[in-house]
Amino acid sequence: MNILLAVDFSAREWAEWLPALTRELPNDTLVQERSVVAPEDIEVAIVANPAPGALHGLPRLRLVQSLWAGVEKLLADPNVPSHVPLARMVDQAMNDAMAETALWAVLSLHRRTFDYARQQREGRWARHSQPTAGEVSVAVLGLGQMGRTVALRLAANGYRVSGWSAHAASIPGVRTLAGDASLPALLADAQVLVNLLPLTAKTRGLIDARLLALLPRGASLVNVGRGAHVVEADLLAALESGHIGQAVLDVFATEPLPAGHPFWAHPKVTVMPHVAAPTDAASAAKVVAANVAALREGRPLRGLVDRARAY
Amino acid sequence: MNILLAVDFSAREWAEWLPALTRELPNDTLVQERSVVAPEDIEVAIVANPAPGALHGLPRLRLVQSLWAGVEKLLADPNVPSHVPLARMVDQAMNDAMAETALWAVLSLHRRTFDYARQQREGRWARHSQPTAGEVSVAVLGLGQMGRTVALRLAANGYRVSGWSAHAASIPGVRTLAGDASLPALLADAQVLVNLLPLTAKTRGLIDARLLALLPRGASLVNVGRGAHVVEADLLAALESGHIGQAVLDVFATEPLPAGHPFWAHPKVTVMPHVAAPTDAASAAKVVAANVAALREGRPLRGLVDRARAY
Repeated sequence: MNILLAVDFSAREWAEWLPALTRELPNDTLVQERSVVAPEDIEVAIVANPAPGALHGLPRLRLVQSLWAGVEKLLADPNVPSHVPLARMVDQAMNDAMAETALWAVLSLHRRTFDYARQQREGRWARHSQPTAGEVSVAVLGLGQMGRTVALRLAANGYRVSGWSAHAASIPGVRTLAGDASLPALLADAQVLVNLLPLTAKTRGLIDARLLALLPRGASLVNVGRGAHVVEADLLAALESGHIGQAVLDVFATEPLPAGHPFWAHPKVTVMPHVAAPTDAASAAKVVAANVAALREGRPLRGLVDRARAY
Repeated sequence: MNILLAVDFSAREWAEWLPALTRELPNDTLVQERSVVAPEDIEVAIVANPAPGALHGLPRLRLVQSLWAGVEKLLADPNVPSHVPLARMVDQAMNDAMAETALWAVLSLHRRTFDYARQQREGRWARHSQPTAGEVSVAVLGLGQMGRTVALRLAANGYRVSGWSAHAASIPGVRTLAGDASLPALLADAQVLVNLLPLTAKTRGLIDARLLALLPRGASLVNVGRGAHVVEADLLAALESGHIGQAVLDVFATEPLPAGHPFWAHPKVTVMPHVAAPTDAASAAKVVAANVAALREGRPLRGLVDRARAY
């Protein structure tokens, strides 16, 4: 099978991905230059920020496989044919990485390590009272593959976890709530809010002044979803007033976070450069190969995007 | 039963501990002032840094119960009668707190959050390649109650964990090694070294230039045992040369860490004010009450210290 690589890789990324994909797809042809293959001979496109026009005029394209988990850009991209099945990356290695980041953030907040780091900079030795993990309530917004993994990992490490999603879900050891009406009760009880929602028209800007005001005073926000979920000016105001105690942010409205942005130097903001769940090439290549095999053999594909729901 | 409280509590600590102990020991008398009870009527002493002479002249004392897990000071204290059984605090809440601290430190090192914090201070957006947890080798020194809990928690979160102790131990999912001869092999493979040894004549100063040199270049040290395990000048030299990548230190030769100590401002040292496993009064009071009940009923006591081993 001819598989088009429509990706914007740096030289370093090529050096990592090409051997991984070649190893997992030994009987297929990885097409780096469209011109070398007839358009009607391309059946699969592997995409990562595809260039404009990269997927045009491929009459027998049967699968667009994203290398990333978030597909909001691909869904909005007129260059991605809307009649061809689109699959997101569903990789347990990425889910585990996300669970580690969320757990690290929750441990840091629970065990006050951001406070102790501030104290170290001030040369100040002071201990604070310490609740147990079971006394810390964490709310996870979004219970897709990543949200579920995060909720399970936090519960396994002793936290009191609630999860919220648009459609009803069930996760062992986690209280689950669904739908807009249940959001205020979820937030009223959350000491830490972890955002893992998909970015859709409904969730864009969801974390605004109104939502933040529903959290108890001193609650913290961990955003590992998308920057556009958060109204950054509203978050800054809530940090300023003390209503929000700390924000751990991996994603931003504009990335890289622009120089001089108030988040950089804010004492109550932790800035991470979109590294919460980096794709692991070796592991992701296996996922791609499994979907290509399923396509060839007529079996169900993993990670198919529902274009009506937009995730 | 009359139970002497030989403790150096602050007013805040009294306010926390006295109600907790009173609640768990409703049929016993908690003696705050020795002079109000005849010396021969005191059978148990609960101790936390007992004052000189506090335990002298108690002919019917049957148990000295420490509120802390580390007992090296009590063993060295001529004021603590050496013929009376001494019990350390064995509290799962403390073990869990220690596991959280160790896991937080390992996650921070693995997911490079100390590097990302430095980058934030510099206003610099840069991503680094990211191994999976299973690719990170962690060695835990000391497999007592806390070391075991830490090793199990790290393994449950995906890390490759080895544990080392003076006497052979077995822990599911953890490679265990025992005795001095196995130490070099353990260290040669450790990317993160977590110290949870008891402080004895044998372990004092164990983490010196010679031991640090056995770690691979760039390895990190997490000291949540005792400050006296580490030769601080040797650690500083190893950080300076780049042989040790980062040190996360909760304990120090002198506590509070003195003003102007080079650890405070060192870019590769994380200073925490001895908070890795704070005693939880509510939970610890239950442990004390269980030992008092066992003493009364002639059942085995928990946490008895072996004075020959010194832990």
